[in-house]
Amino acid sequence: MSKNNPPALEDLIGRLSRLPGLGRKTATRLALFFLRQPGEDVQGLARALLEVKNKIRFCSLCHNFTDRDPCSRCSDPHRDQGVICVVETPADLLAIDSAGLFSGLYHVLGGVLAPLAGVGPDDLKIDELLKRVEAGDAERRPLIREVLLATGSSPEGESTAVYLSARLRERGVTVTRLARGLPSGVDLEYVDSATLKQSFEYRREF
Amino acid sequence: MSKNNPPALEDLIGRLSRLPGLGRKTATRLALFFLRQPGEDVQGLARALLEVKNKIRFCSLCHNFTDRDPCSRCSDPHRDQGVICVVETPADLLAIDSAGLFSGLYHVLGGVLAPLAGVGPDDLKIDELLKRVEAGDAERRPLIREVLLATGSSPEGESTAVYLSARLRERGVTVTRLARGLPSGVDLEYVDSATLKQSFEYRREF
Repeated sequence: MSKNNPPALEDLIGRLSRLPGLGRKTATRLALFFLRQPGEDVQGLARALLEVKNKIRFCSLCHNFTDRDPCSRCSDPHRDQGVICVVETPADLLAIDSAGLFSGLYHVLGGVLAPLAGVGPDDLKIDELLKRVEAGDAERRPLIREVLLATGSSPEGESTAVYLSARLRERGVTVTRLARGLPSGVDLEYVDSATLKQSFEYRREF
Repeated sequence: MSKNNPPALEDLIGRLSRLPGLGRKTATRLALFFLRQPGEDVQGLARALLEVKNKIRFCSLCHNFTDRDPCSRCSDPHRDQGVICVVETPADLLAIDSAGLFSGLYHVLGGVLAPLAGVGPDDLKIDELLKRVEAGDAERRPLIREVLLATGSSPEGESTAVYLSARLRERGVTVTRLARGLPSGVDLEYVDSATLKQSFEYRREF
């Protein structure tokens, strides 16, 4: 943009245009929108940004974002404590949760296995998942009866599911996989909820 | 989204999804992006938002956003002080300025005449424009020799230009209009700079 812009405006436009999915034009429009907005709205947004960074942590059980540990989902007694749905990212978790398809527990891997990109099992929350599956009740009876692998249908998502199912079956738990109702090669968070629902209905033993 | 989201996250998503052009999904992606970003980047954005609201005012001459009055463009001696380019909005000004097509002064109307929407001459910075045109030097010779009407080619933009040209010609100033190289019915800020350049080259007396 122009070097004649006030530095404060130029700084804001620059920061906004570095956000994912925003180009320079959209960033400029947003910055001018903020200039027209009431001061309290902009202050509210600035405060919300800081709050999110100050308050949000990772849940020590499911590794999703939370403001308390364990998170509200992990500590919800109405959720089925015997099933864990394994997802790649928090965004995938939100996509499933907002479609209201699943009432068990979650586990966020933090990505997928991608050897070419240098992402191995130790880079994901896999050991943490295995520990959750191994944990038993007072009589050492297993608490988790099913692990539903809800990684994407991309090659990396598939091979991560294959890897996980081998490690999980050793521990005697039933491993299921989202049905191939998923269109191929997409990230889970972009799937519409009807397709997502189908894939939940048709899940099968892996 | 889910009532299970931490309130701080939910608040941020809600505020982001109220921004122009952002839906709930994009807002959620942005919020999760902020969670992954280094704290200083998010703090920097929050600070930039507050700075913009604290520091940016309107220039008393051209009525564009500025952090000092008169703004850097109005007080730039290298700009041609004899030509004023009249635009609807600050975004239009930025579109022209970033294309490097014009080195005179600007005047931001703050909109267009739209009788059906209740926007009359008193709602725009028209009297302020006429005063700038009437101002003379020490010997009362006019300082402004040309006013270039760069309102959009929408019906409102056209009729605003017609209205302004009548008021301006009474004051003996040359009035020009961007050439009809502009595609019809668009807002000026969306025009690509090649078309914008053509319309500057082909401007004619109005």
